[in-house]
Amino acid sequence: MAHSDAQALAAWRLAAEPFYQPTGDEVARFQAATAQRLPVLIKGPTGCGKTRFVEHMAWRLGRPLVTVACHEDLSAGDLVGRWLLDAEGTRWQDGPLTLAARHGALCYLDELVEARADATVVIHPLTDTRRMLPLAQRDEVVPAHPDFQLVVSYNPSPLAREMKTSTRQRFCALEFGYPAPEREAGIVARESGLDIGRSAAIVAFGVRTRRLQGQGLDEGASTRMLVHAALLVQQGLAVGAACAMAVADALSDEPGVRQALHAALDASF
Amino acid sequence: MAHSDAQALAAWRLAAEPFYQPTGDEVARFQAATAQRLPVLIKGPTGCGKTRFVEHMAWRLGRPLVTVACHEDLSAGDLVGRWLLDAEGTRWQDGPLTLAARHGALCYLDELVEARADATVVIHPLTDTRRMLPLAQRDEVVPAHPDFQLVVSYNPSPLAREMKTSTRQRFCALEFGYPAPEREAGIVARESGLDIGRSAAIVAFGVRTRRLQGQGLDEGASTRMLVHAALLVQQGLAVGAACAMAVADALSDEPGVRQALHAALDASF
Amino acid sequence: MAHSDAQALAAWRLAAEPFYQPTGDEVARFQAATAQRLPVLIKGPTGCGKTRFVEHMAWRLGRPLVTVACHEDLSAGDLVGRWLLDAEGTRWQDGPLTLAARHGALCYLDELVEARADATVVIHPLTDTRRMLPLAQRDEVVPAHPDFQLVVSYNPSPLAREMKTSTRQRFCALEFGYPAPEREAGIVARESGLDIGRSAAIVAFGVRTRRLQGQGLDEGASTRMLVHAALLVQQGLAVGAACAMAVADALSDEPGVRQALHAALDASF
Amino acid sequence: MAHSDAQALAAWRLAAEPFYQPTGDEVARFQAATAQRLPVLIKGPTGCGKTRFVEHMAWRLGRPLVTVACHEDLSAGDLVGRWLLDAEGTRWQDGPLTLAARHGALCYLDELVEARADATVVIHPLTDTRRMLPLAQRDEVVPAHPDFQLVVSYNPSPLAREMKTSTRQRFCALEFGYPAPEREAGIVARESGLDIGRSAAIVAFGVRTRRLQGQGLDEGASTRMLVHAALLVQQGLAVGAACAMAVADALSDEPGVRQALHAALDASF
Amino acid sequence: MAHSDAQALAAWRLAAEPFYQPTGDEVARFQAATAQRLPVLIKGPTGCGKTRFVEHMAWRLGRPLVTVACHEDLSAGDLVGRWLLDAEGTRWQDGPLTLAARHGALCYLDELVEARADATVVIHPLTDTRRMLPLAQRDEVVPAHPDFQLVVSYNPSPLAREMKTSTRQRFCALEFGYPAPEREAGIVARESGLDIGRSAAIVAFGVRTRRLQGQGLDEGASTRMLVHAALLVQQGLAVGAACAMAVADALSDEPGVRQALHAALDASF
Amino acid sequence: MAHSDAQALAAWRLAAEPFYQPTGDEVARFQAATAQRLPVLIKGPTGCGKTRFVEHMAWRLGRPLVTVACHEDLSAGDLVGRWLLDAEGTRWQDGPLTLAARHGALCYLDELVEARADATVVIHPLTDTRRMLPLAQRDEVVPAHPDFQLVVSYNPSPLAREMKTSTRQRFCALEFGYPAPEREAGIVARESGLDIGRSAAIVAFGVRTRRLQGQGLDEGASTRMLVHAALLVQQGLAVGAACAMAVADALSDEPGVRQALHAALDASF
Repeated sequence: MAHSDAQALAAWRLAAEPFYQPTGDEVARFQAATAQRLPVLIKGPTGCGKTRFVEHMAWRLGRPLVTVACHEDLSAGDLVGRWLLDAEGTRWQDGPLTLAARHGALCYLDELVEARADATVVIHPLTDTRRMLPLAQRDEVVPAHPDFQLVVSYNPSPLAREMKTSTRQRFCALEFGYPAPEREAGIVARESGLDIGRSAAIVAFGVRTRRLQGQGLDEGASTRMLVHAALLVQQGLAVGAACAMAVADALSDEPGVRQALHAALDASF
Repeated sequence: MAHSDAQALAAWRLAAEPFYQPTGDEVARFQAATAQRLPVLIKGPTGCGKTRFVEHMAWRLGRPLVTVACHEDLSAGDLVGRWLLDAEGTRWQDGPLTLAARHGALCYLDELVEARADATVVIHPLTDTRRMLPLAQRDEVVPAHPDFQLVVSYNPSPLAREMKTSTRQRFCALEFGYPAPEREAGIVARESGLDIGRSAAIVAFGVRTRRLQGQGLDEGASTRMLVHAALLVQQGLAVGAACAMAVADALSDEPGVRQALHAALDASF
Repeated sequence: MAHSDAQALAAWRLAAEPFYQPTGDEVARFQAATAQRLPVLIKGPTGCGKTRFVEHMAWRLGRPLVTVACHEDLSAGDLVGRWLLDAEGTRWQDGPLTLAARHGALCYLDELVEARADATVVIHPLTDTRRMLPLAQRDEVVPAHPDFQLVVSYNPSPLAREMKTSTRQRFCALEFGYPAPEREAGIVARESGLDIGRSAAIVAFGVRTRRLQGQGLDEGASTRMLVHAALLVQQGLAVGAACAMAVADALSDEPGVRQALHAALDASF
Repeated sequence: MAHSDAQALAAWRLAAEPFYQPTGDEVARFQAATAQRLPVLIKGPTGCGKTRFVEHMAWRLGRPLVTVACHEDLSAGDLVGRWLLDAEGTRWQDGPLTLAARHGALCYLDELVEARADATVVIHPLTDTRRMLPLAQRDEVVPAHPDFQLVVSYNPSPLAREMKTSTRQRFCALEFGYPAPEREAGIVARESGLDIGRSAAIVAFGVRTRRLQGQGLDEGASTRMLVHAALLVQQGLAVGAACAMAVADALSDEPGVRQALHAALDASF
Repeated sequence: MAHSDAQALAAWRLAAEPFYQPTGDEVARFQAATAQRLPVLIKGPTGCGKTRFVEHMAWRLGRPLVTVACHEDLSAGDLVGRWLLDAEGTRWQDGPLTLAARHGALCYLDELVEARADATVVIHPLTDTRRMLPLAQRDEVVPAHPDFQLVVSYNPSPLAREMKTSTRQRFCALEFGYPAPEREAGIVARESGLDIGRSAAIVAFGVRTRRLQGQGLDEGASTRMLVHAALLVQQGLAVGAACAMAVADALSDEPGVRQALHAALDASF
Repeated sequence: MAHSDAQALAAWRLAAEPFYQPTGDEVARFQAATAQRLPVLIKGPTGCGKTRFVEHMAWRLGRPLVTVACHEDLSAGDLVGRWLLDAEGTRWQDGPLTLAARHGALCYLDELVEARADATVVIHPLTDTRRMLPLAQRDEVVPAHPDFQLVVSYNPSPLAREMKTSTRQRFCALEFGYPAPEREAGIVARESGLDIGRSAAIVAFGVRTRRLQGQGLDEGASTRMLVHAALLVQQGLAVGAACAMAVADALSDEPGVRQALHAALDASF
């Protein structure tokens, strides 16, 4: 990576190696896609480690990581950039996608399916053999840097919007789920500093909540929530109180689901 | 807190200690979340003391409190900031969220669920281990100040919008309800200066209104409304007239509910 | 009121005492709310005298009255103010709410429930114990002047939008209806200069129209319409022709309702 | 009218006396409203002479006439005015309503009910005893000129939007219909220069089309359309061809209605 | 036409006489409307020659032709003009309607019914006896040039939006359909240079497609499509292949309709 | 092509000959349309080679190719251009359509039917005998360069929006489908470098996925997806794993469809 590229992306370089525990051959698959410069689609439930995996791959590949959390008001201009007025007149400011394409970063569009149609379509010329980004407003066609790679994530719940076929067929897909319980307990212990025994108990409770999915609950506890519970225990809260605060009371407002969650809590601790 | 941070947040520092009477271990739970820099979600009905509790915690922690009342037109730009044109050209102005994140304040987003999707998503990188706020328009990534903490409130009534799972799972939750009657009478007496006897009578009426909830009434009288009634009594209105004006006539327009409220009024005074 | 405040609000000071005839203890109730700096919600049908009562209270309290007619496109910026570009660059212009809060006026938001969500929520910090108005765009927090008071009106017809609970519970309520016939005849006579006999006949017709409410007619004749009829009689129109022009032909376009109104007209004159 | 007011409104002064043939006491009724400065609502079908009547009254009263054709995108700013940027910086430009209110013209809002909510509400303070127009963007309150009068028109067809009660009750109403046939023939002859015989035949055809109203046809031929037909006859077209072109083929696209119109055409000529 | 008017409209003057073959008295009818300065509404299916007829009349009358293709985002500003910022500050730029009205051109609004409401209403004062165009943003009232005439087109298919009565009644109407086969063959031959025999065969196929209208097909082949087919034959394609490419494959995507079209193709060639 | 035209379009000139294998007479048909300057509509499923064919024709014709991926927020201004503010004041910037029309390029609008109505209509004057592009904002009428040709693509799936008849009838149509298996295997082998045997196996799997279309799957695997799978095999993944990642896991999220896809995967490898 050239010096000027490194400077442009300095703010987006990871400061420390993110902890990540592989669950299968996902690292090899991702590396194959990277070697062929193919865009990657990562599917899986909330908080199961998708973002952490992408951070891990950025660190492993030695590339900066430009992340954008997409939402239903995100437009192409938010990704690509725009003209700004400042004291010396107008100047062009690259958006995060252009920054990544021009200087060679991993660009991670979290929940791309939520974005506006123009934001979804703007990635098309970057995701086929053209690997270029036309900036219509600037009359410039940016060829993608060889190190540029696009990664998008997607939570395919029954409530989510569908990804358009013409977008979807551009990606190679990786599927994620929750880690197996013993592995998840290790993650919780490592992230919170709590002992493995209480970490495993918290994970056991988390697994119970996931069984309620589809019975009024959209999704069960994420690994992140279980780490939160362990962190609260580290501050002196009882395990039950910590799981109530970090998991049960946060997961749902529906009385029936609440009751089931607190029953699981009572059964667990 | 550095001198410059203190200056930037001076307008948002509380001038006096807000009165707050704890009802359980909510202070300890909040402090545990603060110690681990976890964001907090406060759930409960209108006017039950959520805002007052947050003010109390800000005072207790010695931190400024930046409050934003969210609504369905609140956009990410309203939270994060924008470029303004003024006499010397354009200058960037931090929005309330950026101000709090940059300089280290409690940031309280009241009824976050009402805000636009982009405003909801903009808090994501501040609420996970990244603890950073990318300002795309300014090409700056603001790392959160160690004293920054995010608190959001939410009234989980059947009519309210649902909070998205990917947002909800980032928070530890605290649940609030109305205080027990004797405690609420003490609050009314203290806030209004009215004697405890008439304060208790006003609270008894308020409790009656809460029983009408679900029978055409969305929510019963808040503690705030009862304080209003007591303040009007202090101005010389009869207790019944004060409760009609501050509570019964304000709560609903539906003839059936109005009749039930006035029956409760007649039964009470 | 300081000299500079008086200047800022000069355009909004009432030029003459508005005529108002009280119908109960509404003046005392309003004064109690004013003394405790509580916001007031005035409910009642179109043209029954709500605006006149607020003008009367402003005159009686010696305060300027800043009035805003709300509508479904009214935004927070319309109330709070905005940056304007003019010949010397940009300058901030206080909106009517900020003007009233900063310098100490009664601020009357007519039909607040019609306004956009952001306009409704912007009054929240002015209507609780904080009594402040954050101007996010200007990075200023305006503490309310001690003389500032907020008054909103609301016509709770079955067709009207509901006021949100979190807004509604901030107000003390006063309810208005049409004045009793003899009182209304006095008002019509005084406002138009017409003799009391014909004024009473016009009022009697007006009362008949109100009985048609709910039978295809949203609301019957307002006191204002009856005054209009009396003014047209003063110009030489026959009483029946004046009531047709000012009341019957203006109230409705539906053939059935029109027929009933003209039958009432024939029966009256 | 002061010299400067006359100058400001010069473009809106009628150049010649518009021909108008009264059909009842509408002139006297309008004059009574003018004398009392009451706003007037004119109701009636398309092209029956509402606009011509208002032009006639403006000429008779010696006042300029500012006309605005309302539509569903018309906003308050379109009526009130706005800040414009030009070569010397920004300057305020009065909209048509402000122009009329400030300098004293008849202001005619054609089909007001079609306008946006903010445009409808902006007339409220001009149509009650306040007779003022607050220009929030300019921090100015314009008192209405004594010669200012507001006139709005409205076509109360079953398909039209309803006028809001709080707007409607501010007006005195005048109702218009098509003129009686012999009177209408006189109008057609006078406006087109065609002889009275053929003018009467054209009117007879027009009356037939009005009987089709409600049978697939929203409205029958307006007086204006009949004048158009007569003008085409003056250019040498046959009466039947002229009525087909100016009336039958223009009124509807529905095959059934078209057939009925052409049958009426064949029966007439 | 004055020299400056001619200059302003130079870009809109037709370079060569457009070929047009009259099918009835449409030229005489149009000329009668032109002589009386009445606006004209041209109705008919896609590609039947409406635009060509208007070009022909503009050439015959010796007037420039300003054409605007309307669509559902076309606003009044797009027709009337707007203030533009350029290097020397702001300057007003007449829109196509203002250009035509000011300098005297035929103004042709293609598919006016598709435009936004404000664009539809803005033509009203140009289409009655006032013949003027108020430019509210510029505080100017443009009187229409004597040579200005408005022409609008409209395709009254069952799927089209309805034209509002208050707009429709301002126009004289001319109806167009497809030319008779022998006439249409002549047009195809003349426009493409193909011999009359193959032109007639192509037209015969086109007539067959029109019989499918209403059986899943919105409209049959336009004359334009048949000319396209003939042009492709001139390039060496077989007649069947040319008709498939220019007509059958372009007309519809529905399998059933496609099959019927290809059956017609096989039967024809 | 003139020197200045070549410069303006330099960024849009293809750098290398794109590989394309004809499947019928599509090249001859396209060339006939080009010779007659007729616009072309290319229909077919996602990823079947439409874009590659257009690139091939641009290369073969020696013309630059300006491509725009349309989407539901694409407006006329995005195609035509706009005024930009920069350091030296405002300047006009041609949009991609204007650039192509002015200087003579192939302009390829991918999925035009997705664009906004104003964007669809703006191409009309370029696609009939006028061959011109009016730039209303610039008061300029751009005559199309002789080398300009418009090509649009369209995926006529049951879920797609319909193209308006008045747009559709302007085009000659070419239909594309997936290549025959042996031809497709050759394409996969050539694009990925994989041997023909494994390429054929991958294609056989792809053909199986296409049979699932309409059974919960919108479209089967595109040729592009099969090339992706082959590229991953080249990186060392097993053929089954590569097809899972590049095809099966990317095509759908529905459990039933997923199961069918993995069954096809198991049957294939």
